[in-house]
Amino acid sequence: MSRLDRSLLRPFPLFRGLADADMEVILESAATRRVAKGATLFEQAAEADEFFFLLDGRLKVMKFTSDGDQVLIRFVVAGEVCGMAAAIGRNTYPATAKAAADCVVLAWPSTMWLRLVEKVPALGAGAMRALGQRLEEAHTRITELSTEEVQRRLANAITRLAGQAGRKVDKGILIDFAVTRQDLAEMTGTTLHTVSRIMSCWESKGLLEGDRQHLLLREPHKLLMIGEGSSADG
Amino acid sequence: MSRLDRSLLRPFPLFRGLADADMEVILESAATRRVAKGATLFEQAAEADEFFFLLDGRLKVMKFTSDGDQVLIRFVVAGEVCGMAAAIGRNTYPATAKAAADCVVLAWPSTMWLRLVEKVPALGAGAMRALGQRLEEAHTRITELSTEEVQRRLANAITRLAGQAGRKVDKGILIDFAVTRQDLAEMTGTTLHTVSRIMSCWESKGLLEGDRQHLLLREPHKLLMIGEGSSADG
Repeated sequence: MSRLDRSLLRPFPLFRGLADADMEVILESAATRRVAKGATLFEQAAEADEFFFLLDGRLKVMKFTSDGDQVLIRFVVAGEVCGMAAAIGRNTYPATAKAAADCVVLAWPSTMWLRLVEKVPALGAGAMRALGQRLEEAHTRITELSTEEVQRRLANAITRLAGQAGRKVDKGILIDFAVTRQDLAEMTGTTLHTVSRIMSCWESKGLLEGDRQHLLLREPHKLLMIGEGSSADG
Repeated sequence: MSRLDRSLLRPFPLFRGLADADMEVILESAATRRVAKGATLFEQAAEADEFFFLLDGRLKVMKFTSDGDQVLIRFVVAGEVCGMAAAIGRNTYPATAKAAADCVVLAWPSTMWLRLVEKVPALGAGAMRALGQRLEEAHTRITELSTEEVQRRLANAITRLAGQAGRKVDKGILIDFAVTRQDLAEMTGTTLHTVSRIMSCWESKGLLEGDRQHLLLREPHKLLMIGEGSSADG
């Protein structure tokens, strides 16, 4: 990568501790790419030629089943890596990533992964922490799907999303990209109908408000309590 | 570690490609420990002082919810690492590991992780592959919990367990450790009652047989088909 101002990358935890020389090594093999909202960055089962760092925008990572069902695995926000098939010894992408907003990514050839980690061990350690966090998120979802009522799962999914991608505003916590009810249904293993019913109820009680562009948690604490099962409210 | 015959470790993928000198580095800071069946190796939320490699036996990794519910995350079989909190930047164990059979583990102080990976990068790469595999297993379970009927989930859980820990015998594929119906219920997000009903049905049809010590898949192919949803049988 030639022209990107390195100072743009410094705020991201993955790059924060790196020496300038290491940063140089990492960036010289990267390409900057724009991905328009709605476009696909990589596709499940396709050959994993590249891995990515999201500089700006949002990605939606989905898994498709052989029956054609679709599950939303996660949103990727700026500062996160994705498509790390090479790092985990895979040749193909395990999921599909689509731009949920206009995105800018850094892309590296997968063949570079081992060389980069050898030269910059901190990169490997950072990627490992990211994988570990996702594994834990995944185990939390499994636990929720196995033991919790849908209303708690939905409250927890929204609370996590706010923690990952929300920002504090006057009226509460704002997630300022489109999170559809279908997305929420796929994230919580339930139907669109059920999500709509619960969300409408929460909206009428003033807990949150959402449209096609954003989701505003007006009473994040109440959602947290519903998620913990310590409130029958909902 | 002083006395362990290195040749015992060579067959495991994690150690297979390592130079003798690297092997030496890894093993000199390891302690060998026996864990009796039923004993706890590490506990969720406890300080993660050590990480482990399972030489022999089976571990059961479970997650407890704040409500006291319990979910079986996975069985760990010989040749796998676990308790890798240090590798993913955590101070505490995210889950509990109990011996499902008498076990022998290698244990390292968590403080050694970064030093070991620096000296032996292949160890980091191996651990990353292991994490990646688990992440994928977890996403598959999320997908199944979100989209599949319980009968398919149960067939898939048993098929995966056979792939991970089974061996071919005359009558089919044998998983030769105790997998209780409660374990299977926790692995598939359903009740003991439902698992018992389906397993009894499958047993009566000759698909499998189980007792407190083992599980024998007599018709692994049929279970595979049930898991894929391509058979109404069950």
